[in-house]
Amino acid sequence: MKKEFDKIVRSRRSVRKFKAIDISDDVVKDCILHASLAPNSSNLQLWEFYHVTSKKLMKKISYACFNQPAARTASQFVVVVTRKDLWNKRRLFNLSKIKARNLKLNDKHLKNRSIAIKYYKYLIPTVYKEFYGIIGLFRYFNALIIGLFRPIYRQVTKSDMRVVAHKSSALAAQNFMLSMRSNGYDTCPMEGFDSLRVKKTLSLPRSAEINMIISCGIRDEKGIYGDQIRVPFDEIYFKK
Amino acid sequence: MKKEFDKIVRSRRSVRKFKAIDISDDVVKDCILHASLAPNSSNLQLWEFYHVTSKKLMKKISYACFNQPAARTASQFVVVVTRKDLWNKRRLFNLSKIKARNLKLNDKHLKNRSIAIKYYKYLIPTVYKEFYGIIGLFRYFNALIIGLFRPIYRQVTKSDMRVVAHKSSALAAQNFMLSMRSNGYDTCPMEGFDSLRVKKTLSLPRSAEINMIISCGIRDEKGIYGDQIRVPFDEIYFKK
Repeated sequence: MKKEFDKIVRSRRSVRKFKAIDISDDVVKDCILHASLAPNSSNLQLWEFYHVTSKKLMKKISYACFNQPAARTASQFVVVVTRKDLWNKRRLFNLSKIKARNLKLNDKHLKNRSIAIKYYKYLIPTVYKEFYGIIGLFRYFNALIIGLFRPIYRQVTKSDMRVVAHKSSALAAQNFMLSMRSNGYDTCPMEGFDSLRVKKTLSLPRSAEINMIISCGIRDEKGIYGDQIRVPFDEIYFKK
Repeated sequence: MKKEFDKIVRSRRSVRKFKAIDISDDVVKDCILHASLAPNSSNLQLWEFYHVTSKKLMKKISYACFNQPAARTASQFVVVVTRKDLWNKRRLFNLSKIKARNLKLNDKHLKNRSIAIKYYKYLIPTVYKEFYGIIGLFRYFNALIIGLFRPIYRQVTKSDMRVVAHKSSALAAQNFMLSMRSNGYDTCPMEGFDSLRVKKTLSLPRSAEINMIISCGIRDEKGIYGDQIRVPFDEIYFKK
């Protein structure tokens, strides 16, 4: 598996021009299923995947991406959406699943389950509840004071919670892009777009955020702009 | 490659208890190299990877992670760090690399190169320059007005730029975790930690942010808490 993964990860490139060939909807859908298996914060799965294949919608999305080549030539799009606003729904979903778990009832399992139930019942609301950034600010100063005496979780502002949700979506996005590669397909993750126009095009609620738009298709070799540029490894890798 | 990737992605689980067995530093290092091949925003590579193997430092990091089981039993840690503050250094690095590129000098290549040079010379500073969130706010309102007339990039506040940097680091982190799995190793990405204490332990500058801490080792089957819980696929997948 090691060799195959090395091949997949090294052959993945951000492809800026795709061949005018159709790709299989079902394969892309399977890759999105792989995306949804990514680890994510508190298993809240605050993500949604919009698989765009209709030519009419694709034109609109390409326009919102300034018609950059990777968008203009894409065969399909996958729009990764972050839904921080669904935290309570997903919290209750996890709670019900954990309570329903069929356990070999030894002490260790029961203890773990009871910790997990408390986590979703009490801790998650404490961290996720928000009111125009004010509750987050309160949490921040609270952590600052308690943190003088013992380790404490500090990523509690409104901005922090956005980061947390987007991070998880990105973990899923990378699963997706590698899965596409393992199927011989190519991708280009894009962040350069008009998020408001994309949200309107997909009829998304105000509280949804676009994590990234991934162009999908089969690479035209001209769509790879030279060798991959990476900073020297010893500038980013530190052994401690 | 498709089957192997499916195996890798499905067998990756967040492992909360590791066997007390040493793992190879070199293999972990190779997986970090795979991490650094992830796509990332404007190729600025605003990431660093701290590979922690010293028992003394590991104890300190585990403490900052509230000694949760995944931290307490880990064989090694990889701390993924987001370095938004290095944007200018990395911008200049990209510029020099693109200028030095050995091109077959046809018109198309020259045009692409000239676009890329302009991108790093003018656009990146416009988006990344910051002064206590004030410049970001100005960019935000500017985008709001121009956006009435044509598509425009809107993710320009200080909070947005944090999201952008952390997203890229997460793409790298997922490469890393899958690469570990392809080598028969296991991981647990953690966000529950005292970021200030971790930064002190690693002597990181104030402007660095911890993206996540990844516990590494070999799974103890007891460290996998039941079947993977996922929301029904039709609640997160939408075909358009």
